Amino acid sequence: MVQILYCVSMTSDSSLPSNGRLGILMPGLGAVASTVIAGVMAARNGTVAPIGSISQMGRIQTDPGNLGSAKPLIKDFAPIAQLDDLVFGGWDPISANALEAAEVANVLTGPDLAAISAELEGVVAMDAVFDQKWVSRLEGVRVKDLPSKWDQALALMDDIERFRTEQECDRLVMVWCGSTEAYQEPSDVHMSLEAFEQGLKDNDDNIAPSQIYAYAALQSHVPYANGAPNLSVDVPAMIELANKLSVPICGKDFKTGQTLMKTLIAPGLKSRMLGLRGWYSTNILGNRDGQVLDAPENFKTKEASKLGVLGTIFEPENNPELYGNIDHVVRINYYPPRGDNKEGWDAIDIFGWLGYEMQIKVDFLCRDSILAAPLVLDLALFMDLAAQKGQSGIQDWLSFYFKAPQFRGDRVEHDLFVQERLLHDKLRELVAS
Amino acid sequence: MVQILYCVSMTSDSSLPSNGRLGILMPGLGAVASTVIAGVMAARNGTVAPIGSISQMGRIQTDPGNLGSAKPLIKDFAPIAQLDDLVFGGWDPISANALEAAEVANVLTGPDLAAISAELEGVVAMDAVFDQKWVSRLEGVRVKDLPSKWDQALALMDDIERFRTEQECDRLVMVWCGSTEAYQEPSDVHMSLEAFEQGLKDNDDNIAPSQIYAYAALQSHVPYANGAPNLSVDVPAMIELANKLSVPICGKDFKTGQTLMKTLIAPGLKSRMLGLRGWYSTNILGNRDGQVLDAPENFKTKEASKLGVLGTIFEPENNPELYGNIDHVVRINYYPPRGDNKEGWDAIDIFGWLGYEMQIKVDFLCRDSILAAPLVLDLALFMDLAAQKGQSGIQDWLSFYFKAPQFRGDRVEHDLFVQERLLHDKLRELVAS
Amino acid sequence: MVQILYCVSMTSDSSLPSNGRLGILMPGLGAVASTVIAGVMAARNGTVAPIGSISQMGRIQTDPGNLGSAKPLIKDFAPIAQLDDLVFGGWDPISANALEAAEVANVLTGPDLAAISAELEGVVAMDAVFDQKWVSRLEGVRVKDLPSKWDQALALMDDIERFRTEQECDRLVMVWCGSTEAYQEPSDVHMSLEAFEQGLKDNDDNIAPSQIYAYAALQSHVPYANGAPNLSVDVPAMIELANKLSVPICGKDFKTGQTLMKTLIAPGLKSRMLGLRGWYSTNILGNRDGQVLDAPENFKTKEASKLGVLGTIFEPENNPELYGNIDHVVRINYYPPRGDNKEGWDAIDIFGWLGYEMQIKVDFLCRDSILAAPLVLDLALFMDLAAQKGQSGIQDWLSFYFKAPQFRGDRVEHDLFVQERLLHDKLRELVAS
Amino acid sequence: MVQILYCVSMTSDSSLPSNGRLGILMPGLGAVASTVIAGVMAARNGTVAPIGSISQMGRIQTDPGNLGSAKPLIKDFAPIAQLDDLVFGGWDPISANALEAAEVANVLTGPDLAAISAELEGVVAMDAVFDQKWVSRLEGVRVKDLPSKWDQALALMDDIERFRTEQECDRLVMVWCGSTEAYQEPSDVHMSLEAFEQGLKDNDDNIAPSQIYAYAALQSHVPYANGAPNLSVDVPAMIELANKLSVPICGKDFKTGQTLMKTLIAPGLKSRMLGLRGWYSTNILGNRDGQVLDAPENFKTKEASKLGVLGTIFEPENNPELYGNIDHVVRINYYPPRGDNKEGWDAIDIFGWLGYEMQIKVDFLCRDSILAAPLVLDLALFMDLAAQKGQSGIQDWLSFYFKAPQFRGDRVEHDLFVQERLLHDKLRELVAS
Repeated sequence: MVQILYCVSMTSDSSLPSNGRLGILMPGLGAVASTVIAGVMAARNGTVAPIGSISQMGRIQTDPGNLGSAKPLIKDFAPIAQLDDLVFGGWDPISANALEAAEVANVLTGPDLAAISAELEGVVAMDAVFDQKWVSRLEGVRVKDLPSKWDQALALMDDIERFRTEQECDRLVMVWCGSTEAYQEPSDVHMSLEAFEQGLKDNDDNIAPSQIYAYAALQSHVPYANGAPNLSVDVPAMIELANKLSVPICGKDFKTGQTLMKTLIAPGLKSRMLGLRGWYSTNILGNRDGQVLDAPENFKTKEASKLGVLGTIFEPENNPELYGNIDHVVRINYYPPRGDNKEGWDAIDIFGWLGYEMQIKVDFLCRDSILAAPLVLDLALFMDLAAQKGQSGIQDWLSFYFKAPQFRGDRVEHDLFVQERLLHDKLRELVAS
Repeated sequence: MVQILYCVSMTSDSSLPSNGRLGILMPGLGAVASTVIAGVMAARNGTVAPIGSISQMGRIQTDPGNLGSAKPLIKDFAPIAQLDDLVFGGWDPISANALEAAEVANVLTGPDLAAISAELEGVVAMDAVFDQKWVSRLEGVRVKDLPSKWDQALALMDDIERFRTEQECDRLVMVWCGSTEAYQEPSDVHMSLEAFEQGLKDNDDNIAPSQIYAYAALQSHVPYANGAPNLSVDVPAMIELANKLSVPICGKDFKTGQTLMKTLIAPGLKSRMLGLRGWYSTNILGNRDGQVLDAPENFKTKEASKLGVLGTIFEPENNPELYGNIDHVVRINYYPPRGDNKEGWDAIDIFGWLGYEMQIKVDFLCRDSILAAPLVLDLALFMDLAAQKGQSGIQDWLSFYFKAPQFRGDRVEHDLFVQERLLHDKLRELVAS
Repeated sequence: MVQILYCVSMTSDSSLPSNGRLGILMPGLGAVASTVIAGVMAARNGTVAPIGSISQMGRIQTDPGNLGSAKPLIKDFAPIAQLDDLVFGGWDPISANALEAAEVANVLTGPDLAAISAELEGVVAMDAVFDQKWVSRLEGVRVKDLPSKWDQALALMDDIERFRTEQECDRLVMVWCGSTEAYQEPSDVHMSLEAFEQGLKDNDDNIAPSQIYAYAALQSHVPYANGAPNLSVDVPAMIELANKLSVPICGKDFKTGQTLMKTLIAPGLKSRMLGLRGWYSTNILGNRDGQVLDAPENFKTKEASKLGVLGTIFEPENNPELYGNIDHVVRINYYPPRGDNKEGWDAIDIFGWLGYEMQIKVDFLCRDSILAAPLVLDLALFMDLAAQKGQSGIQDWLSFYFKAPQFRGDRVEHDLFVQERLLHDKLRELVAS
Repeated sequence: MVQILYCVSMTSDSSLPSNGRLGILMPGLGAVASTVIAGVMAARNGTVAPIGSISQMGRIQTDPGNLGSAKPLIKDFAPIAQLDDLVFGGWDPISANALEAAEVANVLTGPDLAAISAELEGVVAMDAVFDQKWVSRLEGVRVKDLPSKWDQALALMDDIERFRTEQECDRLVMVWCGSTEAYQEPSDVHMSLEAFEQGLKDNDDNIAPSQIYAYAALQSHVPYANGAPNLSVDVPAMIELANKLSVPICGKDFKTGQTLMKTLIAPGLKSRMLGLRGWYSTNILGNRDGQVLDAPENFKTKEASKLGVLGTIFEPENNPELYGNIDHVVRINYYPPRGDNKEGWDAIDIFGWLGYEMQIKVDFLCRDSILAAPLVLDLALFMDLAAQKGQSGIQDWLSFYFKAPQFRGDRVEHDLFVQERLLHDKLRELVAS
């Protein structure tokens, strides 16, 4: 492992909110969540910088039209919460606390874990709302014993308020870090807030656990970000609620390994007007996520999320000769030897001048939770900033972080570099506001 | 090979210069040049679209601030020359004409070549200015028998004028498609136009053939683009001459295979604040280019060009913890089985959250001339446009096409996506002017 | 393509059977079969050597105990049929003749095909016994219109005799080159010759088309080799028939791309006592074979064949610490851009001294029919040799060619190098007999 | 890391030499040597099996002609020394002891090292015979201050005898684990024992340090195995001495990563008569070995060793159409991010039926010392067995372990599987003797 001393930056603007504790609530206190907590603790201690976090290590051009203008760290530019002010909480159907989760996940090597084990143990998991129907490969043992979905929602709201009080939080934000649920299309119960609330009371089969969390969060005025590909805040009922109560929402599906590479490479091929004949992607992973996705109904959810990215980047309608006939195949396989590490292999078939074919192969030996953790931190801090600045509803400027980003209108942007520009533009706007 | 019918676009703006023939002169009538010609002929015949050419197939947002604004083809937006108006010429120390060059290069498969062999044969190579001292692995046989460099320059200027007259060209542009010359640092003779002209007369050892071509082009008011990494129009003497006579220049080293991928991927890693520990690149190629670069003095020229790209993208000064200690290694090996195909293999070592390491491997099975050919076409058309619009000196908006782009000031931009923006911005500016 | 002049060997032993024509009958006159024919014709013409054929280009140590002993070509050592004496025939539900098959398969580039198109066109396909129930992705159009399986078998026997007479063949051999049929376990109807014949008459659902071909071949005293993974001559009924009539049989599933590499690498890892934790294999292919295997029931047949190879090589019972816990995953995906080319990517996870982990990745960019074609030729010639030498029943010495080799007893050998030894030993034995 | 409990085998033959301590002397107490010691200690403690060691974990067919015969562990079959009877010693110009060496090498992760740090610290390095002229990238600090090579040899012999006495060893064996020395061709001084001894006295420039170690070992009746590619016991002077004093010798250059894979794959391609057009191998490594090989004169030594393997496997004289025109390129690059891990990437260009081309890419993410360590153990035990059984001179049956194996006659065998057979045959012969 690379040893990096984290130099705390000196700059400090009086407008930054030095006051107030921010609670980050994570449904799913597993590999990702425990890694988030471990990394924030290490960064606080100054042992390792929060690598991969844009909010902490990224810079922003203050005047995008002037390349010579100042380029401060984003954390010094925008009034986001400070790492020292963060408090963590969550729910989990399996692990009792973040330490146990980290030990099972086996993401962190021994010494990294040992240094912060006491702090991790202190993050105790609340009993989860969980239903194996949606995640057939997991068995929940620490689950709320409440048959009614309405009662489950109320219990989550109680949990939220108890956490707020006990941890003396000024503000809260929720980031879904749980497993991918089985595939579903939106149904009637998702079409309006009224239908959804009736559905909760009627124990409607189409309401998945993650939706109950989202509902509880929004009702508690807590911004909600969805890190998994399942339906959650991207249904009319939730958008209605978010707008009604002026709470920010965003999603979905953290853009980490293979899809990150894809949205990197695709814009480059497009910029050079190289044709694309096919893109085959296979993923092997051995953690709980891999196990969950080994079930066809859960894989389908993920597949839909991963397949969508190429279309809007290549704009086949503008270049049918180049992008009108693309075979895009995505596969995920559970392969235990990989553990929490993930391997994504891509075979990309392009063609150029005179129609001649060429091939690109990309093998990404990555780490699932290590790539996801800084995204959770950034999303928590930026969603909190949005809430403080009075933003509500869909936050499409956070599309940078998602495989299947939720936008307000029809147009969806997948190009990583355009997404980055949207992020920077909005940060400048929020700071100026 | 992918069969693509090229639909000639219908739009036509009255401001487009439908009048006038443009001559494209290429020193080095080898694999790249013959492929350029073959592809343009195929596109003219409507058999295959000019894939990879931004000028022909790319689109441009007319109002960059408005994503809903029109997005016409660049060739319909900017008054660039039309394919039907192009005439090709060049010099070569080995091949007698473009057909012979294509046969030796073995880039095109039989039927592709057969269809246009007569036209290719008609592009006869003029005798070259050549000196084996600069390209030890090649033996020139069709070389001007003139001992004095000054006389060589005059002879090239005669060639240019003769070509202009015989081919009834209204305008000319020159694109260097020859081999990479041996490495050299700029010396006194390159420091001013006066010194350079004296050097030509004194047969100064430090003046390489490519510089004589560049001098002849500029003196003939012909814009000059340098596709190889050697010193050429990037020395004070040439910049002085270009500015004095108001001729556009640009370079250097076509950004085609591995470096193209590098400037694609690097900005993405940077945008996610993932640390970089090392980047190892090896290249295997089996064509004349590979043979030339097998000589250490020529490889050094190429290596310098390829090594420069990471620094400005990662801005280590802004993120020393992430990018302050990068091992960047580039190797090129001559490997005859590859032929004109090229294979670039990259091992990229990154690190993320908590310092954990990850690896990316990229294997690019590409084709040298196929990737370079559309760049030659674009550069010729855009340089001609620049000249018509009164631009002179260094054209840094064409950095998109080069591994080691020549900029006016200190700041060099390597990020492919920023370079693309510069290109579009300038095109809009030229059209509006 | 590599140009190779084929030097016909000079040696000639008077014991070689220069007399007599050998007919090679192939059910499935598609990509593989047409490539076999094309290659044999090219070798006959002396334009390209029969590369990949052990019978034609391989050598054999005459005295395995003496490394200094003679090492003649196998074709000069063993009395196998000569290429000039071969005649080709076959059945196909889709193509009318071998030329049409080759054109659809798109294995051969234009000039290779043009040179022998007349000869290929002369190999006319007989109407097939075909049932879409077993190959859901194909639609047969040139199919025998006979509802009874018994009648189908008789019709095939008629075809065989007509071919024998019309083509003046002295001997015949049949090699299954058709598609992989849907997965099935042996059922009662396969358990004895009597049951099978009754099943033919009863139109038993469990009898697949390939089994009818096998039955017809054996009843006609024609040796039968099975190149696909489905049940065929590896059921008790067929073994009984082969033994009863003294006809050689062998199978199954040509060992060509990924599995070939696997049975190469695995013995090496084993020889070094390196532990194996997992082996993930994915295959992408875009030809008719890929299309057929895209159906889960057909993939299952192939998967079973591909998964079996590691066990007997690693002998986990002898080294449980090293090989007792292997995750072996095999996937096949239909990916049209690949065409008849096939790509197999393997991720191999090993461990060594002190338990430290290492990884091997293998990417095999191969060609399905090109690898299979020489196996068909070898099997035809060696099966014919076996028949002439009075061998009958299962020919396990031909295991070298198969993914799931059929052996006489319980012990199955997958190690390519042991299989090669078995092949050579038997050849020496047959020659000495 | 994979956790493996090592089950000590029960079998024990009365003929095994349970008496007597065997001292293993290693010139070069660096990454490899310290890893050897650590692994033997872990195996003794029963924490991890000696994975990768044939002598400890491999089995042997007692009757090679009978596949049903017993297949005991080699350590139970042949009277080799037991792990409990091993004592380690060595010389090093840099590290003070094996613990320090292990810490610098950074092969072992913290906990693995901590468990045996006291034992490792007890293996104190003797001052080395060292000359930077032969290894320009290393600076020796713990070096014998003796100007005469003759005196250096005598000092080493003293070291050997002192070690033998102090450690109460019954037998000794020496395995060169030091760095690769600069390339040299054998010169006059190497041509006879007399010339060599005169050279030692004359301080002949052509005598490299490793040769002084070899001389001292043989004069002390200690078997000598050479793990590096430099000239050592493969010169006439040393062979003469080994034969004269009846001491076994063997070498050279441990066959570990890329070359191991090569000698695995090549025989398989050959067995299938697939043609080979080229084999490009690049290696990146970041340890002391990589640093040493970054010097061209040392790389040349290694390159010669690595390039030799293909010829004898493919026998181009027997198949000129297939193997008569192979481009074989080997590169090694120092790349610090890799550390002691090594990565070998191979691009293999083959051709098959009708001359069609195919490609194989192999990426081996391996670990240098982890792969080499079990070879050191095996060689020490087998060389000791040979000495006890009265063998002397070149031990070509140990070719299995070497990139450039030393054979008695002209014929050199590189095929891993033939080498394995030679090893087994000799073991059976020695046991029977």
